Amino acid sequence: MMDRPLMISQIIEYAAGSYPEQEIVSRTPEGGLHRYNYEDAAKRSRQLANALKSLGVQAGDRIATVAWNTYRHLELYYAVSGIGAICHTINPRLPVEQFGYIVNHAKDQYIFLDLTFVPLLEKLQGLFEGVKGYVVMTDRAHMPETSLPNVMCYEELVGEQSDEMAWPEFDEHTASSLCYTSGTTGNPKGVLYSHRSTLLHAFSVLTIPGMNLGEESAVLPVVPMFHVNAWGVPYFAPMVGAKIVFPGPKLDGESLAELINNEGVTEAWGVPTVWLGLLGHMRKTEQKFTSLKRVLIGGSAAPRAMMREFQEKYGVEGLQGWGMTEMSPIGTVSMIRPKDADLPLDRQFDIKAKQGRAVFGVEMKIVNDDGQALPRDGKSFGELLVRGPAIISGYYENPEASAKAFDSEGWFRTGDVSKIDPEGYMEIVDRTKDVIKSGGEWISSIDLENEAVGHPEIAEAAVIAVHHPKWDERPLLVVVREPDSQLDKQGVIDYLSQRVAKWWLPDDVVFVDELPHGATGKLQKAKLREQFKDYSLPEVGG
Amino acid sequence: MMDRPLMISQIIEYAAGSYPEQEIVSRTPEGGLHRYNYEDAAKRSRQLANALKSLGVQAGDRIATVAWNTYRHLELYYAVSGIGAICHTINPRLPVEQFGYIVNHAKDQYIFLDLTFVPLLEKLQGLFEGVKGYVVMTDRAHMPETSLPNVMCYEELVGEQSDEMAWPEFDEHTASSLCYTSGTTGNPKGVLYSHRSTLLHAFSVLTIPGMNLGEESAVLPVVPMFHVNAWGVPYFAPMVGAKIVFPGPKLDGESLAELINNEGVTEAWGVPTVWLGLLGHMRKTEQKFTSLKRVLIGGSAAPRAMMREFQEKYGVEGLQGWGMTEMSPIGTVSMIRPKDADLPLDRQFDIKAKQGRAVFGVEMKIVNDDGQALPRDGKSFGELLVRGPAIISGYYENPEASAKAFDSEGWFRTGDVSKIDPEGYMEIVDRTKDVIKSGGEWISSIDLENEAVGHPEIAEAAVIAVHHPKWDERPLLVVVREPDSQLDKQGVIDYLSQRVAKWWLPDDVVFVDELPHGATGKLQKAKLREQFKDYSLPEVGG
Ligand SMILES: Nc1ncnc2c1ncn2[C@@H]1O[C@H](COP(=O)(O)OP(=O)(O)OP(=O)(O)O)[C@@H](O)[C@H]1O
Ligand SMILES: Nc1ncnc2c1ncn2[C@@H]1O[C@H](COP(=O)(O)OP(=O)(O)OP(=O)(O)O)[C@@H](O)[C@H]1O
Ligand SMILES: [Mg+2]
Ligand SMILES: [Mg+2]
Repeated sequence: MMDRPLMISQIIEYAAGSYPEQEIVSRTPEGGLHRYNYEDAAKRSRQLANALKSLGVQAGDRIATVAWNTYRHLELYYAVSGIGAICHTINPRLPVEQFGYIVNHAKDQYIFLDLTFVPLLEKLQGLFEGVKGYVVMTDRAHMPETSLPNVMCYEELVGEQSDEMAWPEFDEHTASSLCYTSGTTGNPKGVLYSHRSTLLHAFSVLTIPGMNLGEESAVLPVVPMFHVNAWGVPYFAPMVGAKIVFPGPKLDGESLAELINNEGVTEAWGVPTVWLGLLGHMRKTEQKFTSLKRVLIGGSAAPRAMMREFQEKYGVEGLQGWGMTEMSPIGTVSMIRPKDADLPLDRQFDIKAKQGRAVFGVEMKIVNDDGQALPRDGKSFGELLVRGPAIISGYYENPEASAKAFDSEGWFRTGDVSKIDPEGYMEIVDRTKDVIKSGGEWISSIDLENEAVGHPEIAEAAVIAVHHPKWDERPLLVVVREPDSQLDKQGVIDYLSQRVAKWWLPDDVVFVDELPHGATGKLQKAKLREQFKDYSLPEVGG
Repeated sequence: MMDRPLMISQIIEYAAGSYPEQEIVSRTPEGGLHRYNYEDAAKRSRQLANALKSLGVQAGDRIATVAWNTYRHLELYYAVSGIGAICHTINPRLPVEQFGYIVNHAKDQYIFLDLTFVPLLEKLQGLFEGVKGYVVMTDRAHMPETSLPNVMCYEELVGEQSDEMAWPEFDEHTASSLCYTSGTTGNPKGVLYSHRSTLLHAFSVLTIPGMNLGEESAVLPVVPMFHVNAWGVPYFAPMVGAKIVFPGPKLDGESLAELINNEGVTEAWGVPTVWLGLLGHMRKTEQKFTSLKRVLIGGSAAPRAMMREFQEKYGVEGLQGWGMTEMSPIGTVSMIRPKDADLPLDRQFDIKAKQGRAVFGVEMKIVNDDGQALPRDGKSFGELLVRGPAIISGYYENPEASAKAFDSEGWFRTGDVSKIDPEGYMEIVDRTKDVIKSGGEWISSIDLENEAVGHPEIAEAAVIAVHHPKWDERPLLVVVREPDSQLDKQGVIDYLSQRVAKWWLPDDVVFVDELPHGATGKLQKAKLREQFKDYSLPEVGG
């Protein structure tokens, strides 16, 4: 067979050839909506590729982006990877030190940034060692006064260039993009994707039965393009001619609701936090969704209550996805199989509360502490290990982290503790670092949190282990109440008593104004443990 | 990223893990229906793999099959390729000399054959040079008396073996199966598929928007597994947990209709000839389809009348597919895009009469005689060239054929003459060898045939070029009438006059009892030209 490499540039050219008129709509940082189509996107990607070459960008160079989900970011995805350079997407919410660390660790040469981030980058640029210049992703009219050195205007850079470009072909294992993990459990670690892994991941997603994406789909990636390539949306949507709706900087409930209904969005992908905001807005304004069919909820556990609200109030199917930066990211998807479609809704939510079944291309096993495989009985749990062509073989220039991340057969250790049931549904019990070891038994901090947030007056909840002289570790529940709630400890315990085993009940409940979140919005339990390091349980300390 | 190869064995193991209970139903050569599921199929494939090893089969060895579409043939697909050997599927309808040529050319070591083909192989076995043994695909009770040397019984061979097997992993470019072209235009040429090309082809098919294959699909591959891997059905159906219904030896209308309705078939794939038979039977018995949604018609042009009958009488969508043995085989699919769904049916058939738009993974261009690319204007036509990871880079051990088959940039010459319209629909005008060159202009033999078979009294039609002193070549129409029809030349010409340009009208119409067909049921125009080599046109010769 022909030795044709899988190349990211093939995607945008295929879309331009097969679905030239299909729309890409973006809310822009300048304000307002921008519209164009796949033909335009391909042309502009070629122009941008020529511009990168004119800047001296070579194959293998790292080009950073600090940007929202917009058409310009899409162009960067295709142009940078297309010429064999590496598109390094940076999460702008990273703490300052991590931001500096990442840019220097990746040896980024140019940074492309949205208008929004000019002040941030002005503040940070002193930290960067090898950055040659900055490109503000806007037109001349919107270019700000800035102290950024060697600053350029995106539209000027691109506008001068020819839109002809014979994309180079090279080994499909060549690196195409770089993303660091969320830093939930420690310092972010770099993950380098290849052209091959990117295309195979897109194929995996598109072959999930029931996804049925096509020209009639309009996909809204709320998950940021700086977070694992927006879960692959920018790659798989063009392959099937789906419309893409980019939310730009506005991720609040009102803005999302407006975009979804105005643009006929059929599928929206994002983390639970954004859906909380969206549902809150819908509730308040008593709106309905007019086109939305499906919401993929991932990155953290999808609360049952959220899936139920989507389904029962709006007829929108909530799916759960589990994945990792290290996995490109999608590993499993939880959706109702045809045979289960007539189950009572409650049973359906039981199923969807699990993280889901492996997509084609991902193999999973759970192992005990000795590395021995555990049965898929829905009861045994242990660390989850995975294998597949879109899963890392090591972290980017990080031998220490890499050394710990694989078993002797080369399977990747996810750091998640889980069960797998006989139907193949994987269920996250906890992170290996967060599970509470109480008297030799394990308590899932996640399960406890999920039950707690089911209480109507609890806005957010976190469970961490605190030291206990007899049981070694016991759960402490930290709660953020809904505004105006007077809920107290006893009320929480009473509520939980009806829902969890007695020995799972938290030994104490503490109310706080907010919980620490990382750059992708996840609870940072390491920080929380730090905050509570001097805490001692009432009946022990008092 | 992990260097995980794409392996065919991953497909059957994924299906066994994710869709263990999904059914595979086969009509068997012994008679009756056989049912089992993906879990069984994977187990038996592992047993068969162990059996092959016990026979001494090594990686790279060619193992031939002469078999209908059944579960045992499926097991051979997975077991042979799974251990790194090459599954050579042979078309039992090949002329004797070609059959012998192919077995020796491929150096087949063992031949697995259905009961049906015992007499055939007994007759042919003297021709084979290196075949070590024969395995009759049946159980002991059905084993025939046979003169085949070193003959074994499939069920005995398999039944003894363990169903445990750690499939080996190796380079994904390794050859997995071998199929010879139909021999429509000359001697069949060998095409060697790889694990990589097989999986990428399956991905391409599954990502066609609107295919929507999944657990609720039941796919009937009427196209034989000895003809380009039944167009990939045995590979892509398990990936999405679709039910497979194998028709075994019974491809007549009555048997197919029964199977389709009894087994809830939703999609059926095959060449126009089988659909003629099926539609004929439905018409006669005034039945309806109770589950069938879609029919993929390919391998030869899908007649408009056929698509119309499926649609208007039965509400079944007829899709056209174009492909080649050399392309794994699917290149294009013609289906109605959502934007065109409200067009009048006639316009929709105009669209579906074209061969279709390229699937992701196939690039197309049309070129003139100098190899220069022609515009996609729906008018210009020239030879169609293709490129992609599931397209051959050369014929199997056939340097002469290989030398002619590629342009200087490595594109494969399809031997088809076609147009591409601005929407990307490719339309076959003719084969380069069959097009009629009349006074410097080209007449499409296929277009003429399609118009001719639109006549209710014409069962089949073929157009070939015959020599003309002035125009160089002129079309001769050879017709098979429907039973009892009295249609004459004038009737045919009158009918065509209203449908084609005057200078396209055949110079003569000849009635015959049957037309020569090749091993995949296609018209063999080379043979027909041979039959008519002494023919001279009436107004010229007469
Ligand atoms: N649907 C889900 N349910 C529960 N947990 C999930 C889900 N999806 C993702 N996760 C969690 O998110 C993790 C992957 O997140 P990501 O790659 O963004 O970085 P992180 O693991 O949060 O950060 P770091 O690896 O830097 O500590 C998974 O390992 C899992 O713990
Ligand atoms: N939908 C279709 N419409 C018209 N022609 C088709 C269609 N599908 C396939 N074909 C024809 O079939 C050819 C591929 O067939 P296949 O690979 O089975 O062998 P063949 O070309 O018939 O035989 P050989 O190459 O040995 O002469 C294509 O090149 C094309 O001419
Ligand atoms: Mg992690
Ligand atoms: Mg051919």
